[in-house]
Amino acid sequence: MEPLLIPLIDNLPSTVPFVGPEALERKRGRPFKARLGANESGFGPAPSVIAAMRDQAGEAWKYADPENFELKQALSKHLGVKPANVVVGEGVDTLLGLAVRQYVREGTPVVTSLGAYPTFNFHVAGFGGRLVTVPYREDREDLQALLAAVKREGAPLVYLSNPDNPMGTWWDAAEIEHFIDALPETTMLILDEAYGETAPTDALPPIHVGRSNVLRMRTFSKAYGLAGMRCGYAIGADRPILAFDKIRNHFGMNRLTQIAALAALADQEYLRNAVGRIIAGRERIAGIAADNGLHAIPSATNFVTIDCGRDGPYALAVLNGLIENDVFVRKPMAPVLDRCIRVSVGLRDELDFFEQQLPQALARVK
Amino acid sequence: MEPLLIPLIDNLPSTVPFVGPEALERKRGRPFKARLGANESGFGPAPSVIAAMRDQAGEAWKYADPENFELKQALSKHLGVKPANVVVGEGVDTLLGLAVRQYVREGTPVVTSLGAYPTFNFHVAGFGGRLVTVPYREDREDLQALLAAVKREGAPLVYLSNPDNPMGTWWDAAEIEHFIDALPETTMLILDEAYGETAPTDALPPIHVGRSNVLRMRTFSKAYGLAGMRCGYAIGADRPILAFDKIRNHFGMNRLTQIAALAALADQEYLRNAVGRIIAGRERIAGIAADNGLHAIPSATNFVTIDCGRDGPYALAVLNGLIENDVFVRKPMAPVLDRCIRVSVGLRDELDFFEQQLPQALARVK
Repeated sequence: MEPLLIPLIDNLPSTVPFVGPEALERKRGRPFKARLGANESGFGPAPSVIAAMRDQAGEAWKYADPENFELKQALSKHLGVKPANVVVGEGVDTLLGLAVRQYVREGTPVVTSLGAYPTFNFHVAGFGGRLVTVPYREDREDLQALLAAVKREGAPLVYLSNPDNPMGTWWDAAEIEHFIDALPETTMLILDEAYGETAPTDALPPIHVGRSNVLRMRTFSKAYGLAGMRCGYAIGADRPILAFDKIRNHFGMNRLTQIAALAALADQEYLRNAVGRIIAGRERIAGIAADNGLHAIPSATNFVTIDCGRDGPYALAVLNGLIENDVFVRKPMAPVLDRCIRVSVGLRDELDFFEQQLPQALARVK
Repeated sequence: MEPLLIPLIDNLPSTVPFVGPEALERKRGRPFKARLGANESGFGPAPSVIAAMRDQAGEAWKYADPENFELKQALSKHLGVKPANVVVGEGVDTLLGLAVRQYVREGTPVVTSLGAYPTFNFHVAGFGGRLVTVPYREDREDLQALLAAVKREGAPLVYLSNPDNPMGTWWDAAEIEHFIDALPETTMLILDEAYGETAPTDALPPIHVGRSNVLRMRTFSKAYGLAGMRCGYAIGADRPILAFDKIRNHFGMNRLTQIAALAALADQEYLRNAVGRIIAGRERIAGIAADNGLHAIPSATNFVTIDCGRDGPYALAVLNGLIENDVFVRKPMAPVLDRCIRVSVGLRDELDFFEQQLPQALARVK
């Protein structure tokens, strides 16, 4: 006899959203030479951010301010909204989990795209939601199909990333706004803008916190180069933002993370510089793809998804060849998307190494 | 019309487990001169830990290893268990939330002591559990009463901290073991040992991971001086530990936190030194209490709970007097316990300041 897990949890599969590069390194017995698989930013955080973290490391004995007051003040100023319209959390992943918990119980239909962010799906499964997926269309999340699924299922929650991961594609602000306008008022949209900083400015609709059925999520993990520090935030109307306070882990934030995020937000010049390097990196990756006769899907993110030109098993073999040759990359796994591999922008020497290894991986598969 | 929160969440009160000292400082318009309210360690993390964090700050662009492999290896070696018997999380608070989610759904009875750790209660409420509390007995958690409540209610989950917060009291290992032996096999015990490092060695039972109904929780927040970094861990049998992997936020850990925790664990000499200073600080606080005609409750933690000798409103007035005079302390709020204030061990100059302010706060109340 032993304690019984509640059936919902007991029946969950033991899956994880992603395997980390460190696990692959342990399995392979040697480190990667290029870390281009997790959409991190090899350019790193700003020197000003690193300096702030170093300066404050000795203060790590203090719990962080549970209200995230200073960071929320700075974010609200940056975004042009009230602090009451922002909630800060330990990465977007945590905020996704909390949002799912707010709207989903066993059997609740939740709509997303087939092949979109697996960590969202992990949380939906974790709270017993019934995931309803619609396929991508021409490598973009299909707004009409998402809308149709929401209406058909009466779903209280729908997930959309713009720009998209894992394809890197995006919709213009006007199209996102049409989508929002067409959504039932009782359906909450999670608009994941983790890659917002690297997108064309006309991809992000203006922020309207009067809309009570949109939660926009952003992060310091991508363009700001702070994936390891875990800081994301959601922007929304007063009531849905307040709801996070009812269940979030109030003392969950890391004190150095608050300091790092504040410093990162203050250094917009570094951000512009990093985004410039990311855009140049995207072009470089697209060029490498073209040199190998492959098509790079236009990207608004810090990665480029490359169409390997054949089917899923073929692209998987290319991926495995790259991993064997010390290049950490990932790939979409859903049908149709799975013909691609996904390459994050990295430092010049990492992209040099990728450029060198890709032809070999392709040659071996052919 | 707007999206509807699930009723359980919608009906939760907007309470927080604790108000942070920063919020009090903002309200007062000036900083505290002594930070002695949150059971942090003013001695800070080890110099070796600070050096490791500074050294690795530039690596903050990488996600942490989601398997916490190195830290789990080090912990398992330190504890004499397998890595499969350890789960690492973003502080004990996060692990408590996950544990509650595993065993509690709407209406599930959960047993704890009246006045014990509020964050546990916050999570129980957040998952709709029915909290069943038993009073402390002579300022200790009442093992017999906890056991009786578990059996009467058929509770699948019971919380016990040893040493205890907020009273600082403890049970010997033998008594804890009797309690465990007497528990129904189907009841999971969360044995919160956040203050384990500062306790007499005979307060902690040996670790038996063969017991499938005990999760022991420990932290780097207290004696290790890393509250702001958020790292806790739970030790238990294979199956309950594995269950965390089904729902935990796999990429939730901070990379610098993994580095800090590894370095902290490696520096046991600093820990011994810090514990020595904490014990000396307890004696100092008890002496200050005695000098003011008050009784300090013997403590096995990094704080001392002082009996103010009258009722709750009186102790509250003493507390408010201290806070007005720039000393951040807290107090238990449950009946009987509420006659006390709780003072964390701090640096010498902070305790000097407390020593100076306490008589004034008492004089004003009398």
